[in-house]
Amino acid sequence: MNRLSLYGLNMQKRLNKVKDIVDQQLVLNNEKVADALRELADSGGKMVRPALFLFFADFGDNKDEDKLLKIAASLEILHMATLVHDDVIDDSPLRRSVITVQSRYGKDVAVYAGDFLFTRFFQLLIETMNGTEYMEVNANAMQNVLTGELDQMHNRFNLNETVEEYLKETEGKTAELFVLAAVQGAYFGNADEKIRKVAQKLGKKIGIVFQIYDDILDYTSSKEELRKPVMEDLSEGVYTLPLLIVLKDHRQKLTDILEVKRALTVEQAKQVTKMVNEFGGVARAKELAKEYSDESLDLLEQLPKGTASRELKRLVQGLVDRKF
Amino acid sequence: MNRLSLYGLNMQKRLNKVKDIVDQQLVLNNEKVADALRELADSGGKMVRPALFLFFADFGDNKDEDKLLKIAASLEILHMATLVHDDVIDDSPLRRSVITVQSRYGKDVAVYAGDFLFTRFFQLLIETMNGTEYMEVNANAMQNVLTGELDQMHNRFNLNETVEEYLKETEGKTAELFVLAAVQGAYFGNADEKIRKVAQKLGKKIGIVFQIYDDILDYTSSKEELRKPVMEDLSEGVYTLPLLIVLKDHRQKLTDILEVKRALTVEQAKQVTKMVNEFGGVARAKELAKEYSDESLDLLEQLPKGTASRELKRLVQGLVDRKF
Repeated sequence: MNRLSLYGLNMQKRLNKVKDIVDQQLVLNNEKVADALRELADSGGKMVRPALFLFFADFGDNKDEDKLLKIAASLEILHMATLVHDDVIDDSPLRRSVITVQSRYGKDVAVYAGDFLFTRFFQLLIETMNGTEYMEVNANAMQNVLTGELDQMHNRFNLNETVEEYLKETEGKTAELFVLAAVQGAYFGNADEKIRKVAQKLGKKIGIVFQIYDDILDYTSSKEELRKPVMEDLSEGVYTLPLLIVLKDHRQKLTDILEVKRALTVEQAKQVTKMVNEFGGVARAKELAKEYSDESLDLLEQLPKGTASRELKRLVQGLVDRKF
Repeated sequence: MNRLSLYGLNMQKRLNKVKDIVDQQLVLNNEKVADALRELADSGGKMVRPALFLFFADFGDNKDEDKLLKIAASLEILHMATLVHDDVIDDSPLRRSVITVQSRYGKDVAVYAGDFLFTRFFQLLIETMNGTEYMEVNANAMQNVLTGELDQMHNRFNLNETVEEYLKETEGKTAELFVLAAVQGAYFGNADEKIRKVAQKLGKKIGIVFQIYDDILDYTSSKEELRKPVMEDLSEGVYTLPLLIVLKDHRQKLTDILEVKRALTVEQAKQVTKMVNEFGGVARAKELAKEYSDESLDLLEQLPKGTASRELKRLVQGLVDRKF
């Protein structure tokens, strides 16, 4: 899956402009940090959040495209900030086939690089929406993302984590930004109240689908397809949906292997991955994702027909088919 | 030096209220992070930035004490956020005699804890000044602090760093928040334009005095007095004013020891510390700090006489006498 398959030509053009705005924000004296951030930006993110924002903006009549593109860029920059800090925490060597900021330049650079992006995010907000209630909506969303991350960290190596807890964490750490993107799109695009309500619900569901598929890929992809190390979550104690699903019926077998925690070998991780597939964890996670994506498609029916809703449908379907 | 010796009774009372507001911002579900942040807040910072803000606010006629106290708290929270991330980067075990967030709970918690504080900082700004130009002033100050930190990182282990570069970094990473505090104080206190200009200059000078003394203490204090490890900067490659001053005339002797970089032993660090003292680095750094504090006292003459200017004078003199 790439941008080409997810979006129509017009959206691709607009996302290229969003990317230009993002690039302009990455200018700073420190060359190490500037290079690292440019590499991350260039490594081909799917820009799902800016796209979601722009699709929802299209349901309204606001024609201030410059402003809309800047807000779209602020979403991508906030997302990048969280990625950079997540990689510090996970000690991840790769992200989108590219060496992560912290593994190339050290965690020192990565911590400040993330902070720098948070600052740029706020500067873009101030530029586009100073004085509006959406300043607070953005700050609160950022807080919820962090709280979601913290909850997930708290649950590391917790073999008693429930599917409900997983979904709650996902609502924070992933779905929150999707909701923010969709709701802000409807608001700043000047769409009517009814569309804003659909945006709220749809953002959440799409975010959950996105995260579940992210987690499924950890159990099904090769390193080449995924463009980041597979089975990384397991050795970090991050137990995601496919594993949590099968833990209930096969607890003993899995615990016997996972109890070594960080000392998990690659061989053992492969064993767990195999079990999670054989016991049906992946299949059942896909079923759950399918439920959320079906609900998303139902919600889409409540939106006015046209290019935006057609492309949103294509995006939802694309997320379910993705390989990375 | 403690709060008692730096401020009069009335300011101490107001700072206690600022501390209460800071505490209210540290409420979150994750107990680890909440505990860690509370401990940092309780460990007795000098609250110089909130105090500077309130002193300058007193030159105006704004009586909205609630709002002023909240802005004062935002400054302390921004300061705390930078402390938490600095400690991640320096791998510092102690801060204000208390184990740092990252050494007690790991860098994972510390990275998110700092991010959480940045969010709280912005939330307080939004609560008190949404829509004003000072939103941008704050975001830009935060950016300058980060840029200063990055410049310092870039100069690690650089034995050719000049005193001028040191002062420039200090303007960013330390003086910036002092300037922000003073200027915002004058603005939100509703003081006149002339006072705002003095605030700008005075904030910068006091910030530089503060940082130079911080760095002098690294070469003169015992661990007990300083309440954090001494000579930490040396092994991290952070070469500060007392060392930079003597490098010019004694380069070879110092380079012979420092060339091992991170492998510096405690014995070697002691040797360097001894040399920096013997060669007059500490004495000359004190002279430079004295110049800045004298200039600060001159600037104070431009302010209306009264409690605020009298206490500001006491604060400036207190910073020069401090032991930690």
